[in-house]
This record gives sequence, C-alpha cells and structure tokens, in this order.
Amino acid sequence: MSVAASTPEAWATLSLKALPYQALVALLRAFGNPSAVLAATRAQLGAVVPDVVAARVQQPVAPEALAATRAWLANPAHEIIAWDDPDYPRALLDLGHAPPALFFVGRRELLNRPALAIVGSRNATAQGLLNARAFAHALSQAGLTIVSGLAVGVDAAAHEGALEGVGSTLAVVGTGLDRVYPARNRDLAHRIAEHGGLISEFPPGTPPREANFPRRNRLISGLARGALVVEAALSSGSLITARYAGEQGREVFAIPGSIHSPLSKGCHKLIREGAKLVETAQDILEELGMGAATAGIAPRAASPVSDTEAKVLEALGGDAADVDTLVARTAMASDVVVAALTGLELAGQVAAIPGGQWQRLHGA
Amino acid sequence: MSVAASTPEAWATLSLKALPYQALVALLRAFGNPSAVLAATRAQLGAVVPDVVAARVQQPVAPEALAATRAWLANPAHEIIAWDDPDYPRALLDLGHAPPALFFVGRRELLNRPALAIVGSRNATAQGLLNARAFAHALSQAGLTIVSGLAVGVDAAAHEGALEGVGSTLAVVGTGLDRVYPARNRDLAHRIAEHGGLISEFPPGTPPREANFPRRNRLISGLARGALVVEAALSSGSLITARYAGEQGREVFAIPGSIHSPLSKGCHKLIREGAKLVETAQDILEELGMGAATAGIAPRAASPVSDTEAKVLEALGGDAADVDTLVARTAMASDVVVAALTGLELAGQVAAIPGGQWQRLHGA
Repeated sequence: MSVAASTPEAWATLSLKALPYQALVALLRAFGNPSAVLAATRAQLGAVVPDVVAARVQQPVAPEALAATRAWLANPAHEIIAWDDPDYPRALLDLGHAPPALFFVGRRELLNRPALAIVGSRNATAQGLLNARAFAHALSQAGLTIVSGLAVGVDAAAHEGALEGVGSTLAVVGTGLDRVYPARNRDLAHRIAEHGGLISEFPPGTPPREANFPRRNRLISGLARGALVVEAALSSGSLITARYAGEQGREVFAIPGSIHSPLSKGCHKLIREGAKLVETAQDILEELGMGAATAGIAPRAASPVSDTEAKVLEALGGDAADVDTLVARTAMASDVVVAALTGLELAGQVAAIPGGQWQRLHGA
Repeated sequence: MSVAASTPEAWATLSLKALPYQALVALLRAFGNPSAVLAATRAQLGAVVPDVVAARVQQPVAPEALAATRAWLANPAHEIIAWDDPDYPRALLDLGHAPPALFFVGRRELLNRPALAIVGSRNATAQGLLNARAFAHALSQAGLTIVSGLAVGVDAAAHEGALEGVGSTLAVVGTGLDRVYPARNRDLAHRIAEHGGLISEFPPGTPPREANFPRRNRLISGLARGALVVEAALSSGSLITARYAGEQGREVFAIPGSIHSPLSKGCHKLIREGAKLVETAQDILEELGMGAATAGIAPRAASPVSDTEAKVLEALGGDAADVDTLVARTAMASDVVVAALTGLELAGQVAAIPGGQWQRLHGA
C-alpha cells in the first residue's frame, strides 16, 4: 500500500477504488482527508467500515491507471475537483451518490450555477436538432447552464446552442477526458473545454464502456435542476436520464410531437407519467421560478437574410417545394434561387430533404 | 294560454319557454306532466315556482315556432324525446342541465350506449383529419358511439370514421334539425340520420346562432364518457367542449403534435391542464376501462392497393416528392405514376400538398 504523493492524486486513487458512498463518507470523517485514509492500517480502517471495504481500500490501484492520471494532470488546464473543493457541484453532494473526484477541464465557476439538462436521441430529426439548439440557446441566454452528454444528435445541438448564450454548457462524458467520444464531436469538445466545462467521473484512459453510460446519465441529471427531453424513442438512454432526474427530485420536461413519429413516443410516455409538456423555453423558466429572469431578454433574432433570400423563404411557405417550383413562384433565375437556398440553409432557416425538396425550419 | 294538444307538442312548447332547470323539475314534479304544467293557473304555478317563472310559463310561444315544430313532426322519422322517454340519454339527466326535450332523427338505441366525443378544428391539417377518422373508426369498432358537432373539419371526419364502425355516431347540432349547418355536410347528415342519430335541443326553424353553439358543445360532452380533442387552436370551441367535459366529470383526451403547429397548441394546453395525452385509440379504451373490449378486434386493415400503387408508396417513403421524382425512383411512365397517386389519394393513403408535391399519410 502506497500513500499518494499529492491530494489530487489521493482523491484520484480513492476514486479508482470505487468504494460504497456511505463507507467513503465515514472514512473521510474518521481520517480527515484522502491521504490519511490511504495511509491508515487495516485495523484502523476496520474500526470505521466493514472489513470487506477496509480490504478494498488497501488493495493497490493498477499502476498504469495512476500513471495515466499523473500524465493527464501534468497539463495545468486539467484538474481534479474533489468533495472538499469549494467548486465541487453542491447539486451532486445533496444527492447521496456524488463521485469523490471529478476530472474536469474548463470554467470551474459553471459548476455551481443553476443548470438544466437537455438530452435526446442520437438520431433526432432535423426539426428535433433545431429545437434542441433553440431551447438551449434561449435557456443559456436566460442564465441556465446547459448540461448534456456530448453524444451526436440532440446532445451536440444542445451544447452548440448553449455556447451561444451567457449560461454556457457542461458536457458530462462516460469516458476518460483524454478520450472524447464520439470522435465526430472533438471540435465541439475543444470549444466546450475553452468556454464551458468537460466533466468525467472516470479517470483518463477509460475507454467507452456500455456500463458507464447510465452512471454518466445520472451525473447529467444530478447536476441540473431539471431535464428536458427533446426527442427520444421508447427505449433510449434519454428516458433513463429522465428517470434519474425524477428520482433525484428534478423537474422533467418533454417536447411533444406527432403521434406517428417514433422519436416522439419517448417524450409522450414521459408526459403521460407526469413530465411537463413544454412548447417554449419560457415554459421551462416559469416552471423553475425563473420566469422574471427573462423579462428583459429579447427573443433570439432571426439570422439576417438578404432580400432574395426573404423572397425565396416567402415562396417556400409552410410546405416543401423544389427549386423549379420556387423559380416559378418567385420569377427569379434558378441559379439565384439555388444561391438563396444555400444561404438560407447555412443560416439554419431551411433544410434540404430527400427528393430535391426544400423545407422551411422553425426556430423555437 | 293554450294547452298543447299532444304530449310531444307540450314538451316542445315547454322547451321553447327555456325555463330554469330547477324550476322546470319542480313544475313537472308538482303537476305530473307538461300538458298539466301548461294548463295550470298563475296562482297554481306561483305556489311552486317564483312568480317571474310562473309568468314565463304563461307567456305564449310564438305561433310560427309551434307551427314549424308541428310541420317537422309530421314526418314519422322525426321525433321528440323528452325527459320521461325511456330512451332519453341518462348521461344528460345526471348532469343537472338536461334540455326537457330533444329533437331527434335516427336510431334511438344509440342514445344510451357508451359514447365518446371527438371534436377539433374546422381547419384541421390533412393528418389531423386522418387522425380524427382513424380514432373514430377504431373506437366505434370497439363499441363506443362517437359524438360530435357536424362541423366541417375534425367533426365531419370523426362522424365519417364512426359510421364505418359498429358503434356508429351521434351528431349534435346547434340549429333546428331542418337546417343542417354547414350545408357542405348535408350528405353526411343524411347518412347519420339513417345509420346514427341527429340531435338538437333547438326547435325546427332555428337558424345558426353564435350563442347556441356553446350549449350544443355542452350536450356533446354531456352525452359522452370522455372527449377527445384532435387538433385545436388556443382559442377555439373545442377547448370550450373540453372545459365542459371536465366540469361534467368526463375524461379529457388530447392528441399532441409539433410545438410549431398552431393547431396543436390547444391540445398541448389541455394536456398541461391534466388532459390525458393519447397516441392510439387503445390509450382511450384503457383509460375508460374498456381495454379488454378490443382484444379481439383486428387493427383497421389498410385499403388494398395495386402493385403499381404499392411501388409508388414505397418510392414516396417518409418525405414529400413530386411526380418527376417518383418517375425517376420507380422507372415507371409519368401517367402511370399519376394514376397510382390518384388511386392512393382516393384510398386516403397520400395527400397532394402545395407545389405539386405528394405526401404519404399515416393511419392511427
């Protein structure tokens, strides 16, 4: 048994031992700090916790795990935030299952701001992604930090929208922070590390493991005052997050949709079970008692569009249309219409759908 | 003061006087039947009800109103169903605001069957109309009589769907039964008179009057064990019907939709206020304790389509497409594709949308 050299390393070591929560609390109360716990004899430990736990405390941590943590901590932007850190999220401490140490990169001050989790399908519809982004932007702008899981789909859209607002975003991942998963979100992860925060309870080097994702989900809901489910199939991780949120006494919000859309069925199930049906970000703010906070905040300005783009948007109306139809309606040349559609697509105002059709998107 | 010649006429006359409900009950208890009430002296009436009510009983009914009722009753298919009629809907008697006489054409036995009201917008979307029809069909087939208001839009679609099932349909109108409103539904009204039932609390000759429609709505919800709102704007008669249903102790059901659709906002409001969110007819049957009743009922069979139509449907997929796109996808001649689309439209499987696009519709 070796005593860890520094307090962060001692916390990391204790964290790697995955002790039962109540036992960990008892040990820290008895010995004062993690280094002292690790330095205690078997008899001293056995006086505080059951012998099987005492044995686990004395079982050495795999040297490569400790080495990976040391290497990661060598970067001054990389931190361990432990229970005794004043920046440790109080929302987690209240729950009774807080990881003893969080691996963290980013703005510490975000960890104790009012937060809302936004989760949903990896295979969300175009409108679902737009809803995730628009809600995240509006709620971030109203002062809520948006927590999500850095998955593709709704998670990524929520982080993106939240980065555009003052509340910013926290991403909780189920791997080591040196292995951001999925790779497609690497650029997003870097922007979150700079302007928001990346969190993991798993030490550097931890690969994606199926079993770790429910624990990640419990942290997502635990960090937040409520969880919004944007689009979710009936069997999905988002519903697990929503269940954790309910068990943790958090509000659960869900966006409804067509009864014929498989990705709305999860949301509808939640609503039937008591989740709040929400149509706007304001609905959530009011439910959280933050309705007044947004009184002075202007609605998100529509991206400015050119006169040509405005004409094409108007010609598009509420239904899908192809370029020829738009040419006929606007009496503009087809290359002008195509250029306008491209501009509008970049501005997030229209989406190309199969069959050469274009469809207008609606912000929330 | 004249004593009406027959009991139906006496009920009609009493009905035309629009007496307060409690006073009417007291008078019928005291005098035994409507003819006796109409024959009573002012002093006899005054001993039972306040003098102002006694005066109203003795005020003569407009002769042309009575003449219109007599003319209408000359048709043996036309009936007055009064409180003392064993077929008078018991569901209304329990509410405390039952009209003393209902003008009726149709199958009397439907008046005391388990019923569900289906209401919604006059300007419903194509999918909303399809949902109304599919829910009505499935619920009628499960033995519920579908009650609605014979308006265009959701009402008409609900009646149509219900006529296809064993439960059939009751239409409650806000005019005299000789003035079915709107004219567009005249053919539907004739089919309902033959296979279901047409109901009005207003005597023949009553034109459409704004003030009568809320009373009509209260009868719709009162006749039913619950009310399903299919699509409704925030300010709409459907929400009034839903409110009545709630006040009358009936279940309220609502179909959710896109948060960007104005016609879903009314349904979402109801769900937030406690209405049950429903995705399928089965959801309603279970809530009404009729879940087992449908165990043996097969889901609605899709209309049979030809091989060509099946290929076009498959080529259409989940998104809108125009004929040229479908020609390219199916490698069939454009007139063949157009013929298939026409057949599919008649079968209710696709809808033409603006811009020469076609869209697949989903049954519930």
